[in-house]
Amino acid sequence: MFITFEGIDGSGKSTQLSILAEQLIHGGFSVLTTRDPGGTDLGQQLRHILLHHSGFVSQRCELFLYLADRAQHVEELIQPALARGNIVLCDRFIDSTIAYQGGGRGLSIEEINHLNMQATQGLKPDLTFLFDAPAELLLQRAKNRSAADRFEQETLAFYERVRQTYLDLAHQEPRRIQILDASLPLVTLSKQVDEIVQGKLKASC
Amino acid sequence: MFITFEGIDGSGKSTQLSILAEQLIHGGFSVLTTRDPGGTDLGQQLRHILLHHSGFVSQRCELFLYLADRAQHVEELIQPALARGNIVLCDRFIDSTIAYQGGGRGLSIEEINHLNMQATQGLKPDLTFLFDAPAELLLQRAKNRSAADRFEQETLAFYERVRQTYLDLAHQEPRRIQILDASLPLVTLSKQVDEIVQGKLKASC
Repeated sequence: MFITFEGIDGSGKSTQLSILAEQLIHGGFSVLTTRDPGGTDLGQQLRHILLHHSGFVSQRCELFLYLADRAQHVEELIQPALARGNIVLCDRFIDSTIAYQGGGRGLSIEEINHLNMQATQGLKPDLTFLFDAPAELLLQRAKNRSAADRFEQETLAFYERVRQTYLDLAHQEPRRIQILDASLPLVTLSKQVDEIVQGKLKASC
Repeated sequence: MFITFEGIDGSGKSTQLSILAEQLIHGGFSVLTTRDPGGTDLGQQLRHILLHHSGFVSQRCELFLYLADRAQHVEELIQPALARGNIVLCDRFIDSTIAYQGGGRGLSIEEINHLNMQATQGLKPDLTFLFDAPAELLLQRAKNRSAADRFEQETLAFYERVRQTYLDLAHQEPRRIQILDASLPLVTLSKQVDEIVQGKLKASC
C-alpha cells in the first residue's frame, strides 16, 4: 500500500506521517517512510536546489527537477519497497506538483498530469491525505517553525491558489484523496488518519 | 542567430565551436558561447550529477534533468542573448537528447521531441553542425583525452545507436542540420564551418 501526505507547509502532514508510521510498525507492518523531493541520494541534491537555490529558477526548470526527482525516487526506492510488500508513506508526491506548479505557478495542469505519469511510470498512491485549512493559518505556523525556503517566500495569493487546486483534485478523486481538517488538534487528526488506514488495510486483506 | 554543435564525444565539436567563435568575434560580431548541459550556475550543478553521479540514475530522471537544465538555460541565458542580437553558439542542445536518451537509451523519440519543445518554449537552432564519424574512432579519441564520464562508459553499440539517430535527424531536417566529416583535419573542418556560417549570415542580411 502506497500512502501520500499532502498539504501546504504548516499543515502538519509530516508529523502525521511519523505518527502513522510508528503505529503501523507497532502493529507489525514493514513501513518505508520517505519524502518527495529528496527521497534518494540524487534527489537530496535536487531538493537542495529546489528549496534553496538563491538565484533565478525558471518555472519549467523547477517542474522538470521535481519530475527528475520523482522518476529516480519511484524506480530506486518506492517501487522496490512496494514489491517487497512494505507500506510506503511519502511526504508529498504527484499532487504537490499539480497544486504548486500547476495551481501556484500557472503551468498547464493537463501537461503536468501527463508528465507525472511519465515520471512515475503510471504509479499512483492508493490513498492520499490532504491536510486542509486556510492558507493564512498554515503559513503562519510554517513561519514560526523555520527560515523560509523558496516556496515559503511566495505570496498568500500563491498559497490560496495551491489550496484551491488541492481541493479541486480531492473533488475529482474522492476515493483516493481524503480531506482532513488541518486546524484540528494533532491527536484528533492522528485518530482520523489511523481509522481510515485501518479501514483500507481491512478492505485489502 | 542560434547555432548548435552536435556529435559524439571526441568528434571535435567543442574545438570547432571555439574556432568559429574567435572568427566571428574577429569579424565584429557579438558572440555568446555556451554549453548544454551546464550553461548556467544552476545547470552546472545538474551537469555534475548527469556526468559524474556514481550511483544508479534512472533513465527518466536523466531525461528530466537534461530538460530542467535546458529550460533554465534558454530562459536565463540563450533567449536574452538572442534578444540582444548576439550570435549564440551552443555545445549540444535538443538533438543530443534525442540521440542519447532516445537512440542510445531507447526512450520514446516522439515524447522527447514534445518535451524538448516544452523545455525551450519552442526555440530551435537556426543551424546545427553534426560532426559525424564512426563511433569507434571518436570514442578512441575521447578516451585518450580524459577520464571517462557516465556516458563514456557506455558500450560501442550504445554509441552506434546514438550516431545513427543523429544521422536520421539530419536526414529529416537537412536545411537545419549540416553533416560534416569529423575524420577530416581540424583546419579543413573549420573552413567548412566558416563557409556555411558566412553563407547563412549573408542570406539573413
